[in-house]
Amino acid sequence: MNKLGVIDRVDLPVDRIPTRWYNVMPDLPRLPEKYIDNSTGQPVTQEYMERLLVKAMAAQESTLERWVTIPEPVREAYKLWRPTPLIRAVALERELDTPAQIWFKYEATSPSGSHKLNSALAQAYYAKREGHTRLVTDTGAGQWGSALALACRLMDLDLLVFMIRASFHQKPYRRYLMETYGAEVRPSPSTTTEFGRDLLANDPDHPGTEATAVSEAIECVYSDEGSRLSVGAFSNHNLMHHTVIGQELKEQLAEIGRTPDYLIASVGCGSNLGGFSFPFVEDKLNGADLTILAAEPEACAPLTYGEYRLDFADAAGRGPGVHTYTLGHDFVPPPIHAGGLRYHGCAPLVGLIRHEGILDAVAYGQTDVFKAASTFAKLHGYLPAPESAHAIRAAIDIALDCKRTGRDATIVFNYSGHGLLDLEAYGRYNAGLLRDVEREDFSAASLAAMRV
Amino acid sequence: MNKLGVIDRVDLPVDRIPTRWYNVMPDLPRLPEKYIDNSTGQPVTQEYMERLLVKAMAAQESTLERWVTIPEPVREAYKLWRPTPLIRAVALERELDTPAQIWFKYEATSPSGSHKLNSALAQAYYAKREGHTRLVTDTGAGQWGSALALACRLMDLDLLVFMIRASFHQKPYRRYLMETYGAEVRPSPSTTTEFGRDLLANDPDHPGTEATAVSEAIECVYSDEGSRLSVGAFSNHNLMHHTVIGQELKEQLAEIGRTPDYLIASVGCGSNLGGFSFPFVEDKLNGADLTILAAEPEACAPLTYGEYRLDFADAAGRGPGVHTYTLGHDFVPPPIHAGGLRYHGCAPLVGLIRHEGILDAVAYGQTDVFKAASTFAKLHGYLPAPESAHAIRAAIDIALDCKRTGRDATIVFNYSGHGLLDLEAYGRYNAGLLRDVEREDFSAASLAAMRV
Repeated sequence: MNKLGVIDRVDLPVDRIPTRWYNVMPDLPRLPEKYIDNSTGQPVTQEYMERLLVKAMAAQESTLERWVTIPEPVREAYKLWRPTPLIRAVALERELDTPAQIWFKYEATSPSGSHKLNSALAQAYYAKREGHTRLVTDTGAGQWGSALALACRLMDLDLLVFMIRASFHQKPYRRYLMETYGAEVRPSPSTTTEFGRDLLANDPDHPGTEATAVSEAIECVYSDEGSRLSVGAFSNHNLMHHTVIGQELKEQLAEIGRTPDYLIASVGCGSNLGGFSFPFVEDKLNGADLTILAAEPEACAPLTYGEYRLDFADAAGRGPGVHTYTLGHDFVPPPIHAGGLRYHGCAPLVGLIRHEGILDAVAYGQTDVFKAASTFAKLHGYLPAPESAHAIRAAIDIALDCKRTGRDATIVFNYSGHGLLDLEAYGRYNAGLLRDVEREDFSAASLAAMRV
Repeated sequence: MNKLGVIDRVDLPVDRIPTRWYNVMPDLPRLPEKYIDNSTGQPVTQEYMERLLVKAMAAQESTLERWVTIPEPVREAYKLWRPTPLIRAVALERELDTPAQIWFKYEATSPSGSHKLNSALAQAYYAKREGHTRLVTDTGAGQWGSALALACRLMDLDLLVFMIRASFHQKPYRRYLMETYGAEVRPSPSTTTEFGRDLLANDPDHPGTEATAVSEAIECVYSDEGSRLSVGAFSNHNLMHHTVIGQELKEQLAEIGRTPDYLIASVGCGSNLGGFSFPFVEDKLNGADLTILAAEPEACAPLTYGEYRLDFADAAGRGPGVHTYTLGHDFVPPPIHAGGLRYHGCAPLVGLIRHEGILDAVAYGQTDVFKAASTFAKLHGYLPAPESAHAIRAAIDIALDCKRTGRDATIVFNYSGHGLLDLEAYGRYNAGLLRDVEREDFSAASLAAMRV
């Protein structure tokens, strides 16, 4: 409570870290479509999934159990930073002069700097338990890679990360962090996979994308029996692991006697949106007047501009085919600073709830997003990741709507990670050098734009 | 409490943020020597102090009140991140196989990333209350500059920061952070002061030092009636503001029924050591078996290798003369990565407790320090600032001593800030490129070494 008698922060004691993950699937109007094995055109087999993923992950991917117990060593590791606080953005409310309350779930206290560690710890734990020696993964901006690097270190497991080549060279801080945690980091495209070599043969300056990095990671897994793929977003099990966020949030909101009118999260694939909002989906299906909103970058907005259809999850089509919103697996997003949101599709469960009318979406240009981020930093001190700032942008716009309508709404956004390793982008914004990428500027083959 | 039934974290509720700062001066065996006005050779006058500093700061500098009430708006702002947790480094204890307990006070949760915000908020508050329009300050690595930039934004005040030129160009992230908070940042030496122009005339590539930056800040203050100097360490009032750290720590240790055997902090000037340890000085003077230990960089270690004598606080001798441990005001430290520890002297109160035998000191080469930092990051996830890592190095060495002697000591170090903006240095360490600077390598005139 602050000097005005306003409750502005809700902390939970450590014994209220959730003991179970919540699986939204049994509560949805229908199940997601099955993954497709691209070599047969048929639904994937359990064998296919278990060659690619850790067995426990393959099982969690299709389980219809509503609750999955969190293994004790994972819950123990969650104590490094969980429960995370729910904080009221009182200064932002005053600045906007809105009757709405703006709250944020502050996931940036994680040692790796974002919510990503919730799933990373779970995946590393199961991989170790099953006797695998190494996980292989892809990373864009590096939030996922650094979370998994720490998780693998804590669980005593090797890790190989394919990092988008442009980020590998231009944003080395995340790479240094992964290496400090003990991971091996390679740029994608790399010369260490067939797919990478092919790409480089066609274009020695290929900057890489999330989709090329996934393809290379999959190739590495298939060529080494001791390795399994670890997925940083997208998969059902990954989103489920993040539901500790939404479960804590429910308890925190109950403590202050508020129900949310708006739940807002940025979406690249949907890991933070899923973890944050899925525990509220049943309330919405039962009639709660609740808007769940995905905030996307204008430059790469499958939920806003994409189609719901079968597509590849990766650039090469080596992984499964999935039904979800997509801009096309060969779409190369332009080089915006929210690197974590540069993916052509979104998680099947996020696509499904959008398709079912449970999820709304909005897209913003990066100048607007950085303006919101900068305002927030000046008022609250915390510097948001460019990804998370999309949610702040949306929260501000809704709060301003509430000002016009006089509505005392409860707006909650997920502050998914900090932007301390994205200060280069803030420097460009401060210097007036940031430009918006217009939709007309790019096409599915806009590789050239990546080098702007 | 963790799965082994070990209490591994002590959090205090927000209403236990201290209400007063603790002033150690009345409890010391003798008072520090008076500051000297270098133009007269006589002790400084109150007028001299009030032209340089905000009045309240000038008053706090020499007050003999044991307790100073924290103004409500400052305590309110402390709620952004205080109380900070006390965390037990259980994994580090296991790794070292030591019977000692290792705890750390985790100050890195501050929005600006270090303990520095404790004093920054106080100084910005008083400056605003007295009607000043601008604060002027110096910063080395940028921890202080970014804390004061945020504090000035929150208190609605302008800020001019002189940042060591080498850091300004080579480590722009902290600069971008200060600019995001709204501060004006200039490299030191700059062309905007007479002193800066003189330095650049002699050496256009002068890399700057803390001492040159202070001299330029003082010149700016003297040339603008609305401006006052804000001091990021060194001064008695600054150290006093940080005693919220040690006061909280005392309560946290009392909760778990431990008394500290070792209190360890890194020292550049001494702001984090002072704030962390001063509330325990009286216990030590009353007979407690307590070691207070300053961890310095071998390359710049006034408490280990310096003399206790009268010297200038800044390079040009425009500020006051002070009695403390010093390597000489014209000493140019070599370019180690713990930029915040590159200062020729230390705070007069820290020098005094060293001189009185209350404080011990130890110095480490940077390779040893980064090895400790890297070990800690792998075990606990948190990436320490290179400055704070000096304290970790010392804690590890003492814990290993305890292993040899079988002593169940309580070791507490201050984790003063995070190292996320120092990842360049970690990258160099990981790549084996970091080298130790031997004492023989540098001299008082080792400007050339700065460019290594």
